Amino acid sequence: MKQDATEDQVARVLFKIETLGSRAHLSKGRVHTAIGVIGATNGEEADILEYLDGVERVIRSSGPVMLASRDFREEDTVFSIDGSQIGSKKIIIIAGPCAVESREQLIQAALAVKKGGAQALRGGAFKPRTSPYSFQGLGEEGLKILAEARDMVGLAVVTEVVSPEQVPLVAQYADVLQVGARNMQNYALLNAVGTSHKPVLLKRALSSTIEEFLNAAEYILSHNNPRVILCERGIRTFETCTRNTVDINAIPVLKSMSHLPVVVDPSHGTGKREYVAAVSRAAIAAGADGLMIEVHPDPENALSDGIQSLRPQEFETLMEQLRPVAEAVGRTL
Amino acid sequence: MKQDATEDQVARVLFKIETLGSRAHLSKGRVHTAIGVIGATNGEEADILEYLDGVERVIRSSGPVMLASRDFREEDTVFSIDGSQIGSKKIIIIAGPCAVESREQLIQAALAVKKGGAQALRGGAFKPRTSPYSFQGLGEEGLKILAEARDMVGLAVVTEVVSPEQVPLVAQYADVLQVGARNMQNYALLNAVGTSHKPVLLKRALSSTIEEFLNAAEYILSHNNPRVILCERGIRTFETCTRNTVDINAIPVLKSMSHLPVVVDPSHGTGKREYVAAVSRAAIAAGADGLMIEVHPDPENALSDGIQSLRPQEFETLMEQLRPVAEAVGRTL
Amino acid sequence: MKQDATEDQVARVLFKIETLGSRAHLSKGRVHTAIGVIGATNGEEADILEYLDGVERVIRSSGPVMLASRDFREEDTVFSIDGSQIGSKKIIIIAGPCAVESREQLIQAALAVKKGGAQALRGGAFKPRTSPYSFQGLGEEGLKILAEARDMVGLAVVTEVVSPEQVPLVAQYADVLQVGARNMQNYALLNAVGTSHKPVLLKRALSSTIEEFLNAAEYILSHNNPRVILCERGIRTFETCTRNTVDINAIPVLKSMSHLPVVVDPSHGTGKREYVAAVSRAAIAAGADGLMIEVHPDPENALSDGIQSLRPQEFETLMEQLRPVAEAVGRTL
Amino acid sequence: MKQDATEDQVARVLFKIETLGSRAHLSKGRVHTAIGVIGATNGEEADILEYLDGVERVIRSSGPVMLASRDFREEDTVFSIDGSQIGSKKIIIIAGPCAVESREQLIQAALAVKKGGAQALRGGAFKPRTSPYSFQGLGEEGLKILAEARDMVGLAVVTEVVSPEQVPLVAQYADVLQVGARNMQNYALLNAVGTSHKPVLLKRALSSTIEEFLNAAEYILSHNNPRVILCERGIRTFETCTRNTVDINAIPVLKSMSHLPVVVDPSHGTGKREYVAAVSRAAIAAGADGLMIEVHPDPENALSDGIQSLRPQEFETLMEQLRPVAEAVGRTL
Repeated sequence: MKQDATEDQVARVLFKIETLGSRAHLSKGRVHTAIGVIGATNGEEADILEYLDGVERVIRSSGPVMLASRDFREEDTVFSIDGSQIGSKKIIIIAGPCAVESREQLIQAALAVKKGGAQALRGGAFKPRTSPYSFQGLGEEGLKILAEARDMVGLAVVTEVVSPEQVPLVAQYADVLQVGARNMQNYALLNAVGTSHKPVLLKRALSSTIEEFLNAAEYILSHNNPRVILCERGIRTFETCTRNTVDINAIPVLKSMSHLPVVVDPSHGTGKREYVAAVSRAAIAAGADGLMIEVHPDPENALSDGIQSLRPQEFETLMEQLRPVAEAVGRTL
Repeated sequence: MKQDATEDQVARVLFKIETLGSRAHLSKGRVHTAIGVIGATNGEEADILEYLDGVERVIRSSGPVMLASRDFREEDTVFSIDGSQIGSKKIIIIAGPCAVESREQLIQAALAVKKGGAQALRGGAFKPRTSPYSFQGLGEEGLKILAEARDMVGLAVVTEVVSPEQVPLVAQYADVLQVGARNMQNYALLNAVGTSHKPVLLKRALSSTIEEFLNAAEYILSHNNPRVILCERGIRTFETCTRNTVDINAIPVLKSMSHLPVVVDPSHGTGKREYVAAVSRAAIAAGADGLMIEVHPDPENALSDGIQSLRPQEFETLMEQLRPVAEAVGRTL
Repeated sequence: MKQDATEDQVARVLFKIETLGSRAHLSKGRVHTAIGVIGATNGEEADILEYLDGVERVIRSSGPVMLASRDFREEDTVFSIDGSQIGSKKIIIIAGPCAVESREQLIQAALAVKKGGAQALRGGAFKPRTSPYSFQGLGEEGLKILAEARDMVGLAVVTEVVSPEQVPLVAQYADVLQVGARNMQNYALLNAVGTSHKPVLLKRALSSTIEEFLNAAEYILSHNNPRVILCERGIRTFETCTRNTVDINAIPVLKSMSHLPVVVDPSHGTGKREYVAAVSRAAIAAGADGLMIEVHPDPENALSDGIQSLRPQEFETLMEQLRPVAEAVGRTL
Repeated sequence: MKQDATEDQVARVLFKIETLGSRAHLSKGRVHTAIGVIGATNGEEADILEYLDGVERVIRSSGPVMLASRDFREEDTVFSIDGSQIGSKKIIIIAGPCAVESREQLIQAALAVKKGGAQALRGGAFKPRTSPYSFQGLGEEGLKILAEARDMVGLAVVTEVVSPEQVPLVAQYADVLQVGARNMQNYALLNAVGTSHKPVLLKRALSSTIEEFLNAAEYILSHNNPRVILCERGIRTFETCTRNTVDINAIPVLKSMSHLPVVVDPSHGTGKREYVAAVSRAAIAAGADGLMIEVHPDPENALSDGIQSLRPQEFETLMEQLRPVAEAVGRTL
């Protein structure tokens, strides 16, 4: 739409799209308002839209990704997670244990990450595990502990949802719904979180291309949930010194192809505590909007992923290291 | 259990395991009966079991995979799909279009693959697609068409299920539930098909290791569904001449590590019609128990994956090529 | 050239190409004679060639690979290695130890592979090893042992050359010069073997694309050595159950893109003795023209790669298994 | 050796090692002097060494990498390239075109990178190219132009050597010998640069593991050339949005496993000009000791790799961006 398009003109365009049998998606930026049209509109229909009042131009999407692409929305998407703006100048830190193991463990972790300067608390109540015999999480009990920690400590809660029917339950307790790497192409789940009203943190699958990753985000956006955070968490390569290989290239690629905020998970990405700091600094220097870091009060006795979790003191040291790096690239922590 | 263990002895072992707070899984082979014990049994409990009548020996599983491993069951698992024995000397051919597009298309495909010698018909009613705007399948309508084709032509139906809540619906129409590559680690879905009474064809994820693949099968087996077919369908590598790289090594590796039947999908594995025949021959020569092949009556107008689908005549030619290869390795087609 | 082009017409075309400042490559097939032109000939020069007597048509190469491509030569390239025709109906077996360790070891291996039915003996005298402290081969001493075994047992010798200045030395003893996977893009070495008069067995690098592989062959062919054998020996993937992943798809892809013979090395490809037989059968079924198999009289005490070497008896059993597979695809062993 | 070991004591240990039939490598740090022993010394010989005067302790290398490992030398290796210390607090910038194309092009590039703040000039005179028909470099003519630019502009010259017999020629003109990614396991070449007296910049091969990379360095070190720079230049993965995937994890891994300086090549690593800045910032933030960046005065007309080369102005902007990042991690540029 033109910069000076009126509300009324926008409404008439939306109405026209519906009468043509397509679906319309509205995206209001600070300067421009864009309307996405989904459906096999032919050239003639595009012409009709072009001549409506207030329409600046009709752009045909070159690839399958539309709502997630920079073509559709030039400005960065910024939204609030419990008061913190993600996608803005401020870098968001999501930290906490891999899994909620007990009330005591989680409260300790929450206090530690709050002290270090995190805005959000991570912790899995439903854990997708390679083996059916591994600890699968505390379930709803874990969600309750997370909510209690949020209220007590003052942190947003980011936690994973692993099946469509759980979405309402998890949404009751969480501030951000996490879709894990193994479920990145679980379309039933993407559809379900797309219809929820919570922001979604979408992790890149182990061998997902960047295009597939953006298509997965597109599933969520196409259900009218515009608040999606892209999370690079390491891809699978032949290298065995690290658990995965953080694809640092993906940060500028995603930022150039999409307007969505990008966070990096150096804990899963490296799989080893001693490499988390270096990769965290790299992620911020490369332009990430946030980090997701595993912190555990007692990593030696963690039920999962202890080897990659920072101790509270290590987390604080890391945060101090990150501050000047953030400033060096014009951001704050 | 000993070869001559009585039913009564088996029952007492099962009862003992339950009273120790563990879960028991019974597997009857032609010669031996094995009982899998899941739960953190300590050494003392193992000793108790060892002294029960009829128990030959207690084996502690070395890795996380137990029920799917050859350690647990030495003999090949063989079971019937609508009258055809998979895992036996006879090689099973599952063929048909990528997606059910219409009644006419599917019936034509079914007649063609039946004529060529297939035992089962494939065809997706629910299609997981990279883009939310691609054709997502006909849904229940597609399932009905599949069931009609089965009854008319006489073929078992193999079709994909993409979310836990759909399992009962799909199980109503299908003979085999397929779990696609993108859902190989969708544990909610694995649990759901594990509790159904239908055989499950489990596709290896694009970058799944063999160990993760067997762990995914273990999820299904651990819910007391022993009828799992492992499907190698190509892994993701750097090579771009083919869509994926069929991991031919995986066939002997899976056969040595597991007792479950293994089928290969050369259509997705290569992504190009012209390479399907060579890879099909290779799969059988390497010891696969079956093939899953895309056949479409009119590939040029297919709604998905036309480029890798064989024409009916090409499928017949392939089947003629495969017969001597099967015989060369002591199998029949 | 036209089918009935005279020698004289061919000579005049060759002369014309030279006077235009380009390089000409002659390839005589059973039916057609083709002339490859290398150099930045512009459209005008192509026109001149087109009007010469005996010229059927001028084809412009679509990609960088010309001499190695099927476009340039439709017929399979067939040539003799010490009397055996590679690229023909008969499948060639190259077998022997990873490295020449001693006269006794090599003679024993040679007798065993000859008995099993191999046509050529493999064995490294110069061994490229990951660590500088590993056994690097016996050098010229090893070459002499190889030559002695050839004369005594009656087998062609295939052995690796690792640097350009060694080519004349190795060519003195070997029937086929092997370029190893690590040197596939060592262009100085490719140029050197290209100017030798020995056939070259070129191994695909661990992460080489098929296009890069054919380009490496093109280096050799462009120096007027047309006798190149392509060897698929497994690519590097994330899978760790096997040392490498044999790219079985590559066989039909290479056969369709190139006229050069293709052999497969299942020993390096799988890295484990127990999987060699299955992958060997697959390679032949997929259309390979030969196999390269490690056989050691005493694998437990091998100085390198013992874990993937067959014992003599296992090699004989394998050969018996392969015969019916070869016949099933219209080949002989 | 003990901190207070005398020259004489060191000499006697070296002599003893030689008489035991092993090879000794001397490494003098600021605090400690270490002596590497290569050869199959048995336990008894280690005992003999342990009792010599001045010996603090005998450490047995756990893996095949010895001279390149932190176990052998705790302190960072720092050495001078034409007056600039690599491995020190100061980050070294090596910049210039992919290939030397002409005197004019190179002088322009040299002036530009000098102005931007680089310490060294890169530029290939011998170019290893995928296709035999691509531009292969100007050869010795190119080396002369490089040397002229060095003298005129005041920059160290880093240039590639592609075969063992060229090493003396290239060493005549270059300050640092570069071994390219395709030659990382060309052991004849590694041996040749190991015996030269020039520092060596060793690029990681496209699918080399970190362990193989360090083993390649070990080849050079074992010939008594201790001045090796490790260069991470992107690994091959399935991702196609970028030419390669810079393995940012490798930086902390290499720094923890080895004492050698590490530089990153974001130009080959990403393959696209627009992503070079973000990955350069990330590399420095992660702890790299230097960067190798392609800069071309006229990228649109470059004979190779134009798409990934920065224009002079872009290089200057990048350098300004990098300064605060370097400072944020306690380094200078």
